[in-house]
Amino acid sequence: MPLEEPTLTRETALIEALSRKFGPPPPGVILGIGDDCAALSLNGSDYLLWTVDTLVEGVHFDLSYMTLAQLGWKSLAVNLSDLAAMGGEPGLALLSLGWPPERDLAAALELADGLAQAAREYGVAIIGGDTVASPGRLTVSLTLTGRVPARQMLRRVGAQVGDLIYVTGDLGEAAAGLEVLKKRPDLDPELKAALISAHLAPRPQLTAGRLLAAEGLATAAIDLSDGVASDLYHICRAGGVGAVIPAAAVPISPRVLAAGPYLKADPLKLALMGGEDYQLLITSNRDMVPRLAPAFEGAGLHPPLLLGEIVAGDRVSLVTAGREVDISGVGFDHFCLGRQP
Amino acid sequence: MPLEEPTLTRETALIEALSRKFGPPPPGVILGIGDDCAALSLNGSDYLLWTVDTLVEGVHFDLSYMTLAQLGWKSLAVNLSDLAAMGGEPGLALLSLGWPPERDLAAALELADGLAQAAREYGVAIIGGDTVASPGRLTVSLTLTGRVPARQMLRRVGAQVGDLIYVTGDLGEAAAGLEVLKKRPDLDPELKAALISAHLAPRPQLTAGRLLAAEGLATAAIDLSDGVASDLYHICRAGGVGAVIPAAAVPISPRVLAAGPYLKADPLKLALMGGEDYQLLITSNRDMVPRLAPAFEGAGLHPPLLLGEIVAGDRVSLVTAGREVDISGVGFDHFCLGRQP
Repeated sequence: MPLEEPTLTRETALIEALSRKFGPPPPGVILGIGDDCAALSLNGSDYLLWTVDTLVEGVHFDLSYMTLAQLGWKSLAVNLSDLAAMGGEPGLALLSLGWPPERDLAAALELADGLAQAAREYGVAIIGGDTVASPGRLTVSLTLTGRVPARQMLRRVGAQVGDLIYVTGDLGEAAAGLEVLKKRPDLDPELKAALISAHLAPRPQLTAGRLLAAEGLATAAIDLSDGVASDLYHICRAGGVGAVIPAAAVPISPRVLAAGPYLKADPLKLALMGGEDYQLLITSNRDMVPRLAPAFEGAGLHPPLLLGEIVAGDRVSLVTAGREVDISGVGFDHFCLGRQP
Repeated sequence: MPLEEPTLTRETALIEALSRKFGPPPPGVILGIGDDCAALSLNGSDYLLWTVDTLVEGVHFDLSYMTLAQLGWKSLAVNLSDLAAMGGEPGLALLSLGWPPERDLAAALELADGLAQAAREYGVAIIGGDTVASPGRLTVSLTLTGRVPARQMLRRVGAQVGDLIYVTGDLGEAAAGLEVLKKRPDLDPELKAALISAHLAPRPQLTAGRLLAAEGLATAAIDLSDGVASDLYHICRAGGVGAVIPAAAVPISPRVLAAGPYLKADPLKLALMGGEDYQLLITSNRDMVPRLAPAFEGAGLHPPLLLGEIVAGDRVSLVTAGREVDISGVGFDHFCLGRQP
């Protein structure tokens, strides 16, 4: 989605209206509409997680700067990120491929190569699906299952006033990578390659998600697909709380800071609203906080980075130069960071 | 798909190539790529069925002659037909909706009305999904689960030489309905309405599928989505057999025979290659055959209609005027019924 498009509100309103149309979930459905995955109780101790995600050519990807194999890889990675956000282990997938009839059908196997590579890397089995003609726009829809021990499942709901907000990695690289692909700036080749790779080949934070779930280190969790301003707002809506982010504390990737001037883009804006970082955003209470860094270090992971704090209210606020700017979903299109007096 | 397009071969070849790329399914997966649904063993006695189907604007539907509510209804019905073909009971669904940003988002709720109506009618709970922008073409992707007792599951594989081939209802109405919508012929209004309804509101044969499964009345089964020439060919490929259909025996719907001249369409061709009837096509062995009609009548259903016979070979042949015409997938585009000397 373009950065300035106020899609969150419309999409959130649509999802909430659809949810009312479809009515309450039946017994055995632990989580229905409104989280990263649906969750079903199938046997005693585990929940089955179930998610679907569709990537549309020209909206979510552009084959002028991405190979079909990269698209295949990414399409599974972004689905896996939804499982990571619930603390799940990957399971099985079905692929629904919308292929433009004007495109060589044999090239679909390049896409399958990338998909199969990601499937091997993350332990997913692709066991079926369908193929349809989709004139003009290639679409890749994946539906994926996973498992999580019932008592461990991470959810969007659960953030409490006073919780601290963390992300599992630096922010903004994926969005900066997209800018690099679009603007082709004269950047250091290694820097350029790293940013492009962050955009084209995001790594779902499955290990971090499992660790947070198993150790009980988060009160709420979501993956960063649309950007902090959108995704943290989902956490706030689900929990009936607000959030404050001090601009100075935002863990902007050093690569984004270095590339910013060449991209003519505000690194802070890329970090908070760029989206597609596919890191996890979590909230942790004061009892969990001291255990976060040791647990991550013990698992060979970089400790989570502090982003802000959950407060009373219903807004996501950025504190910059002593002022609070509302960056929650509804304020998205009015966001004019750095251009205020 | 246009009637003459030889998509079956390309699609079949693609699916088989994808299947090789993705490798063999892991333990617990009873059926992977190549049937109407994937089947998973989750607990003792039942299999979980899992399917995905995508409808693309301009390919599978045209909103100039279909309301959004009708589209919602049909998109669930065609997915349910895949469950019916395995003998399954419907369970849960996720919706992935690709919505054109230029279209009023509120209209998505009309689509949801039709979906919710079909969900209530067939006992499906829609419990989640996602929404994405899809410029220019509305797409509806549904992924659906169901259940079938393990020993009862119907499959594409299993047809044996000597089995008889049946369909659960008259053929050709859905294809004739599409022609009515396109050509707007001067037909009897009731006939016109019935044909249009067959195209817009197909009824998944869930009761027939359950009955066939529970009573052990079929050696193989598939639902008629692409048409007999394609779908029976899938049964033949799966079973390593051929099929013979006497043209005189094809159960063409009387409505299609009546409308044929007005539509300037060959009723036999509509019946065999039109697609979208969403009846079940089954094969039954000689022990099952005498039990078919009583079982269906006992359940208040019209008995299955004889279509042909499974033979040795690898082709689907139509016998017409003493000649055999190959109508299996590969002969699709060469099919020129009635115009031969």
